[in-house]
Amino acid sequence: KVREPQCPPPPLIFLFFSTDLTNVSDLSLFEFSPAERIRFILGEEDDGPPPPQLFTELDELLAVDGHEMEWKETARWIKFEEKVEKGGERWSKPHVATLSLHSLMELKRCIEKGTIMLDLEASSLQQVVEIITDNQIETGQLNRDLREKVMYTLLRKHRHQTKKSNLRSLADIGKSVSSASRLFSNQENGSPTTAHRNFTSNSLNDFSDKPEKDQLRNKFMKKLPRDAEASNVLVGEVDFLETSFVAFVRLQQAVMLGALTEVPVPTRFLFVLLGPKGKAKSYREIGRAIATLMSDEVFHDIAYKAKDRQDLLAGIEEFLEEVIVLPPGEWDPNIRIEPPKTLPSPDKRKNMYAGLEAPQMNGDAPHDDGGGGGHQVGEELQRTKRFCGGLVLDIKRKLPFFASDFYDALHIQSLSAILFIYLGTVTNAITFGGLLGDATENMQGVLESFLGTALTGAVFCLLAGQPLTILSSTGPVLVFERLLFNFSKDNDFNYLEFRLWIGLWSAFLCLVLVATDASFLVQYFTRFTEEGFSALISFIFIYDAFKKMIKLAHHDPINSDYDPNLITQYDCRCLPGTIRTVFTNVPVNATWASLTRQQCVTYGGELVGEACGYVPDIALMSLILFFGTYICSMALKKFKTSRFFPTKVRKLISDFAIILTILLFCGVDALVGVETPKLIVPSEFKPTSPLRGWFVPPFGGNPWWVYLAALLPALLVTILIFMDQQITAVIVNRKEHKLKKGAGYHLDLFWVAILMIVCSFMGLPWYVAATVISIAHIDSLKMETETSAPGEQPKFLGVREQRVTGIFVFLLTGLSVFMAPILKFIPMPVLYGVFLYMGVASLNGVQFMDRLMLLLMPAKHQPDLIYLRHVPQRRIHLFTFLQVVCLALLWILKSTVAAIIFPVMILALVAVRKAMDYVFSQHDLGYLDDVIPEKDKKKKEDEKKKKHKKKGSIDSEMEFSEYPYHDNVPSIKISMETMEHEPMLGNKSEDSEYEK
Amino acid sequence: KVREPQCPPPPLIFLFFSTDLTNVSDLSLFEFSPAERIRFILGEEDDGPPPPQLFTELDELLAVDGHEMEWKETARWIKFEEKVEKGGERWSKPHVATLSLHSLMELKRCIEKGTIMLDLEASSLQQVVEIITDNQIETGQLNRDLREKVMYTLLRKHRHQTKKSNLRSLADIGKSVSSASRLFSNQENGSPTTAHRNFTSNSLNDFSDKPEKDQLRNKFMKKLPRDAEASNVLVGEVDFLETSFVAFVRLQQAVMLGALTEVPVPTRFLFVLLGPKGKAKSYREIGRAIATLMSDEVFHDIAYKAKDRQDLLAGIEEFLEEVIVLPPGEWDPNIRIEPPKTLPSPDKRKNMYAGLEAPQMNGDAPHDDGGGGGHQVGEELQRTKRFCGGLVLDIKRKLPFFASDFYDALHIQSLSAILFIYLGTVTNAITFGGLLGDATENMQGVLESFLGTALTGAVFCLLAGQPLTILSSTGPVLVFERLLFNFSKDNDFNYLEFRLWIGLWSAFLCLVLVATDASFLVQYFTRFTEEGFSALISFIFIYDAFKKMIKLAHHDPINSDYDPNLITQYDCRCLPGTIRTVFTNVPVNATWASLTRQQCVTYGGELVGEACGYVPDIALMSLILFFGTYICSMALKKFKTSRFFPTKVRKLISDFAIILTILLFCGVDALVGVETPKLIVPSEFKPTSPLRGWFVPPFGGNPWWVYLAALLPALLVTILIFMDQQITAVIVNRKEHKLKKGAGYHLDLFWVAILMIVCSFMGLPWYVAATVISIAHIDSLKMETETSAPGEQPKFLGVREQRVTGIFVFLLTGLSVFMAPILKFIPMPVLYGVFLYMGVASLNGVQFMDRLMLLLMPAKHQPDLIYLRHVPQRRIHLFTFLQVVCLALLWILKSTVAAIIFPVMILALVAVRKAMDYVFSQHDLGYLDDVIPEKDKKKKEDEKKKKHKKKGSIDSEMEFSEYPYHDNVPSIKISMETMEHEPMLGNKSEDSEYEK
Repeated sequence: KVREPQCPPPPLIFLFFSTDLTNVSDLSLFEFSPAERIRFILGEEDDGPPPPQLFTELDELLAVDGHEMEWKETARWIKFEEKVEKGGERWSKPHVATLSLHSLMELKRCIEKGTIMLDLEASSLQQVVEIITDNQIETGQLNRDLREKVMYTLLRKHRHQTKKSNLRSLADIGKSVSSASRLFSNQENGSPTTAHRNFTSNSLNDFSDKPEKDQLRNKFMKKLPRDAEASNVLVGEVDFLETSFVAFVRLQQAVMLGALTEVPVPTRFLFVLLGPKGKAKSYREIGRAIATLMSDEVFHDIAYKAKDRQDLLAGIEEFLEEVIVLPPGEWDPNIRIEPPKTLPSPDKRKNMYAGLEAPQMNGDAPHDDGGGGGHQVGEELQRTKRFCGGLVLDIKRKLPFFASDFYDALHIQSLSAILFIYLGTVTNAITFGGLLGDATENMQGVLESFLGTALTGAVFCLLAGQPLTILSSTGPVLVFERLLFNFSKDNDFNYLEFRLWIGLWSAFLCLVLVATDASFLVQYFTRFTEEGFSALISFIFIYDAFKKMIKLAHHDPINSDYDPNLITQYDCRCLPGTIRTVFTNVPVNATWASLTRQQCVTYGGELVGEACGYVPDIALMSLILFFGTYICSMALKKFKTSRFFPTKVRKLISDFAIILTILLFCGVDALVGVETPKLIVPSEFKPTSPLRGWFVPPFGGNPWWVYLAALLPALLVTILIFMDQQITAVIVNRKEHKLKKGAGYHLDLFWVAILMIVCSFMGLPWYVAATVISIAHIDSLKMETETSAPGEQPKFLGVREQRVTGIFVFLLTGLSVFMAPILKFIPMPVLYGVFLYMGVASLNGVQFMDRLMLLLMPAKHQPDLIYLRHVPQRRIHLFTFLQVVCLALLWILKSTVAAIIFPVMILALVAVRKAMDYVFSQHDLGYLDDVIPEKDKKKKEDEKKKKHKKKGSIDSEMEFSEYPYHDNVPSIKISMETMEHEPMLGNKSEDSEYEK
Repeated sequence: KVREPQCPPPPLIFLFFSTDLTNVSDLSLFEFSPAERIRFILGEEDDGPPPPQLFTELDELLAVDGHEMEWKETARWIKFEEKVEKGGERWSKPHVATLSLHSLMELKRCIEKGTIMLDLEASSLQQVVEIITDNQIETGQLNRDLREKVMYTLLRKHRHQTKKSNLRSLADIGKSVSSASRLFSNQENGSPTTAHRNFTSNSLNDFSDKPEKDQLRNKFMKKLPRDAEASNVLVGEVDFLETSFVAFVRLQQAVMLGALTEVPVPTRFLFVLLGPKGKAKSYREIGRAIATLMSDEVFHDIAYKAKDRQDLLAGIEEFLEEVIVLPPGEWDPNIRIEPPKTLPSPDKRKNMYAGLEAPQMNGDAPHDDGGGGGHQVGEELQRTKRFCGGLVLDIKRKLPFFASDFYDALHIQSLSAILFIYLGTVTNAITFGGLLGDATENMQGVLESFLGTALTGAVFCLLAGQPLTILSSTGPVLVFERLLFNFSKDNDFNYLEFRLWIGLWSAFLCLVLVATDASFLVQYFTRFTEEGFSALISFIFIYDAFKKMIKLAHHDPINSDYDPNLITQYDCRCLPGTIRTVFTNVPVNATWASLTRQQCVTYGGELVGEACGYVPDIALMSLILFFGTYICSMALKKFKTSRFFPTKVRKLISDFAIILTILLFCGVDALVGVETPKLIVPSEFKPTSPLRGWFVPPFGGNPWWVYLAALLPALLVTILIFMDQQITAVIVNRKEHKLKKGAGYHLDLFWVAILMIVCSFMGLPWYVAATVISIAHIDSLKMETETSAPGEQPKFLGVREQRVTGIFVFLLTGLSVFMAPILKFIPMPVLYGVFLYMGVASLNGVQFMDRLMLLLMPAKHQPDLIYLRHVPQRRIHLFTFLQVVCLALLWILKSTVAAIIFPVMILALVAVRKAMDYVFSQHDLGYLDDVIPEKDKKKKEDEKKKKHKKKGSIDSEMEFSEYPYHDNVPSIKISMETMEHEPMLGNKSEDSEYEK
């Protein structure tokens, strides 16, 4: 029944570590078969599917009360080890299986000496046990008299550790209390029966061949793929053996061996080790060693493909060769090491034998893999050199996905995303609307803002190249509008008509940019420019939030000299005004004293009294709401990484952090009842200003030359729109978002231009892509693998790319005009708090901020960032310093009259970055920023590098090439260290962000 | 010159892992000499001092521009590895040196083949190099022609990585900017000279024999003990060699070999490996392997004592035997593992060979080491069975330390402790004073509280057994006083006289307890009782803080219906009262309307108007101050664990967190100017109530039988005082505080009794030990080792035991009566915030709270606590549940009329705990609580255990015995996970609290 080994048996003895498998060492004494074997096993052309996932279970033989032996599950592996806590009667957290070298050596000896049966045909455990026992007897390793005893032992029943639901643990308390009295009596006669109460016990007499109910009900199955197979490791000590009984079996077909395995999964491998009494611990360690090997991806392949004992031994050697050793004096073996966030790919190990060049050997330059991970210059940005070539390609690329853009949205996650982004959009529309109304004397106000947002957003999401982008009013546009309005007023221009012409010219210029594929310039926007721009916008958010709070405090000043004792002296009375105006007469049925403050002012009265200038409580209440909202939303957002409650609950709370916070603080506000300023939502559908209509006539308001002169400001607007739009587009289309439907830079810009024309004619604000909200949109649509081995990080799969969420968000925004009765309960300070949160959250995870913080950290406390390993600290600080100077200049510019050339200055960031090529080496920039793709320069650099390498520089070390674009070297501390990256933020670090 | 090996050479070939060193395995094929050798080496009787600490430096041969070779330091070890970051030009953080098994095997081959010279006599590197080169030529391993080349190479100059100060890194930016233009030109011709700018270069031509200036200046010396020696590892590739050149040298005398080592430390060991080109990486790994071995405590001993090559090889084998192996598929070798917080003692490994029984083999019962770590029952609590025996012993024990109790205080830390504790004491005195005044109608008020605190505290600290204990008013006493006062009032007793007699009786009873050594009962106060008691007190703190804030809000209510528009209608006028009283006439020169609120009430006027009932702003401002203080003090306290600023600055900020916060929020309060309630400090030295004097006459106020009846309440007070005092004393005297001067339970109680008599006569409150402040006192006086290897945790040495800080604290408290002008700026809400902080902080680190939190955590997110590994979760929950029930009952009791028997109920906690012996096994209790020392019970348990063990239970695993009393199994995550334990808290976890 056993398939005989096919290839000629190799020489029986070969020395351990006889060969350095990667490179031939002059120190190694022998060079021999294991490497060749592995190359042969792994290199084999295999048409079949890859070997299935393995579930490995370690069962130990346990004597219950000395009478009845049984097998008890004590550990299990999918990728990492989970152990049954002896006293705790529960599963430990998944951890890295630390082994002793000794147990691996003993395992090797077991495989050398024991029975190896590969591709055994058997359909029940009974059969397998019979075959291996007989084989041992045949080879003389087992005394024939012991056959029955061995078989009896191996067929004892198996107890599995069941995973209890979390809810039941609380219920247990009650149970425990009620059973306390029963325990009391048990306690006295020392019976340990209670210790096994929550083990699921199988049939009492013997091993059952059918899967048990508990097996089928086991929730652990979720963690396993459908085609998973099991490998069972049985180790134990018995009193009748004098030498050990070892067998390693691979079944021809995976067979369901009844209640052998915790989960109803067919068994493929079986490792049995029975030995004499007194060494249970040593046997367990050997069992752990083989189980760890079986869960190792490379050995797992070898085990499936091995043809004989030597193949298995070669696999063990390969494993030992790759093993990582911790010195005993520097580590405590009792520490359970948490699974790392990232793991090296096993392909590297496999390829080493498959004849491919070992990857760590090639190239130490981080520029090798084409343009860089954080900064993707794909085919979308290739210059076609044809008229509208890029636009046509964009349409061709996106059209096939158009249908899927709708049905891909069918997921509950979309609902959460819609709610979340809707809130952000509405907040934005309200705030920018308010600011615009303020800046343009209500020529554009909140209602225009709502209408424009809804209209442009919905159209863009429906038709643009990248529907994940969210259009919104942005800071720079607002600044421009304010300047424009003041200019028009000073020069007696008709503002809306002037603006219409600027809009038309800008749209025309944008269309020219689209037609000439000018978006290819986007590749010059490196991390430096992006981060500078987005940091600036974040600062504006934060600054604005505080500015508005201060304004509010000035509007409702508190009386700091108030003395409760003098309350009788504080009042504010309405007296007849001294200056006689038209309205001097108080209405009938009223005296001056009975007038309200407003009436008093209206009728020309005078407010007299110490209390007049002050408003009690409102300012302080606003302050409480403002900081409360900020702190609470931060805390709820961070709740995702807390230990409490199941992951799902935490994720829910974290996802709805903003909404929950707003609701909470609206409640607090309502409860206290102080009249804080509330959100004012227009309830009638008409332009905010009575001086305008819904259509701006293009002619008649201004002299004819103004129509042409508008070209000049239009140039500035064009630069601004282009920058604002494309930087966000680049961030949205980043490679690490794993977008599958491609970008559409040209198509995006096309629609922005078209919508600009519409908005200009209707007198609505102009809209471009908003960085913060767009990223929040993407983050709320991220997909991760659902089943993953315990301890393994769920893998980020991509983003739910579709148009539905965006469209719905903007439809809701449009409808919000009618939600005034509900929205009017939201206090403004709460919204300012949300703004502050958004600003701060979007600064998180920006490398620029990390570097700023490094300035304050002593070297020894700095996190283990990849650029700190490779770039001297003073170069990093210089880079940060230059960036700070740039931002400071931009900020100053923004605050002065020169604000109108602000967009040009952002463009200047690109030039500054270009100039940095002369200050910093490409190596340094490769770590701190992206490298500007310029073929000549790059080639030169590469040559230089090669020369450098030949000189035997120690720079050419392995790590160097491993993580060219990862911000963080994988670190066991990541999960604690980096605050969970917020959905709201411009997150640049790829891997750490998909943590659970 | 070379000392020849003394013992007969063992057979040359022995197989690897030929023996299981700990227990003889039936699987091991050979049993041979390495174990015996190690036993011999380590077991040797050695009269000399232990081998000195080693500093190991790895230097690699580096070709600068292909012309001039030189040795460059690339890593160093004291205990953990520090690496020079290639690009970063700086030291990495200390980390666990992960090795590959391959490099260890190659190292072993190097030692097998290479030149081994033990106890070489040489005084310069030149000499050493000559000897080893000649030896290699003699043995035919080196061609004679290459002698010069090898010697030339080995004597090249050495570059060391200097550590730059943190301050200079900022200055570097400026330097970098100015040098940018220079760099520009360098950049173009690709010269890498700039890359080496901050290496200290030695003399240009050759190796210098004298230590360099940089060496002597190196701050790293601080990390090394005075007698440290160096071991230098030199590895490199050269083009003239075809086989490798290996030498391991131990010098007879450690010699200063010039600029060979980074620090001016004499060199004892030298390992040289030169090999053919192309394998630099492999050589480096071998160098790292030997360096790691040299920093291993066991191999380090063997290296010092080895007599020949085989001894060294045996040492390597021992190391390999103990090594911890991580499977390659589960770990990324690029991750730098942070040094663990605790390490297993190397003595265990050493003893294994010294013939002692391996400690992990003996006993799995956590009760073995006598009463338990957290719960010390030392000789202080032995029953002497003599009259005043304990008291006499206490005095005898403490008297010899009396002088040192003063000069031990000479340290700057004492100053910080005084300030910190003073603030806590004053806050306490004020708050409890205020509460007492409230409860007793000012018969005892703030001034009495200050006076009493100062008097009793100072006397106690000067004379008591444990001067680290801080006396204070405590919650239970306050509750009792309130009840007593009401009782006296209801029965027309003279309160102070009645109280005097209760005090006298209680003091008498306490003295009886002292005389009979009743403090031995303290050993029944287990963790259960302690934590229940201290949790209750913390809850009272938190509850009181909120209650007081609510009271404040009710006192100054805000007008939630206020409408700024109706301001003209709000006022509060004083009108002539409707009920005519004696004072109906307004004073001359005043009208009713001109009166202040108070005057109006005084003169019988009536306050009419909507504004009368409200006080604006104060309530909200108080709320802001309250939460602001709490959040700010929490944040500043946690700042200690942040990454910013050097450790010293952080520690300073953290230590002064409370004071800084109070100052900050006093500033905020002053800035806003709202009239929040301020602290009222008595400015005149006289009793608060005019109805009493400074002496309470013992007779005359009450009927004679009251003097006797006072015995009954006195019994209750005695229990209360005893419990309150001794529980705190037990916590203060915990073993983990490593107190060296011994406790004095009897003496403490004696002084409490004496002071009680004084206080009773003077009508001052009674004082007992206050848990929270006492622990804060101890925490602020903790001493740690100052030099420790990089990555190693500073060791906790003990507490600065002295009497000075306490005395000064109370002197300052007494003087505070005169600080009214300063203290009156402190707003009460700020103090309430501090109270809230103290309550919350003292709950931190209490195991009971940890267990409460477990209830909300899904099993997989629970921290790896030791009791979770060993006690079933439902038993833990049951234990927690019972504790919660007890506390809830106590809380209810405290709030009802039965409050007076509160102390008896605390005593009942002991009984409940005793009853738990019947519900929980001793094993479970051993982990969840301490075991009540009772000889019969213990013996029985032990027997049971032994029986159990014989049955081959799997409970007898190694880990089991390792951490009987550590709350946390050492975990790599500790530093991030457990919030820094606050100085203010009743911290029960031993190790984690001394982290940096």
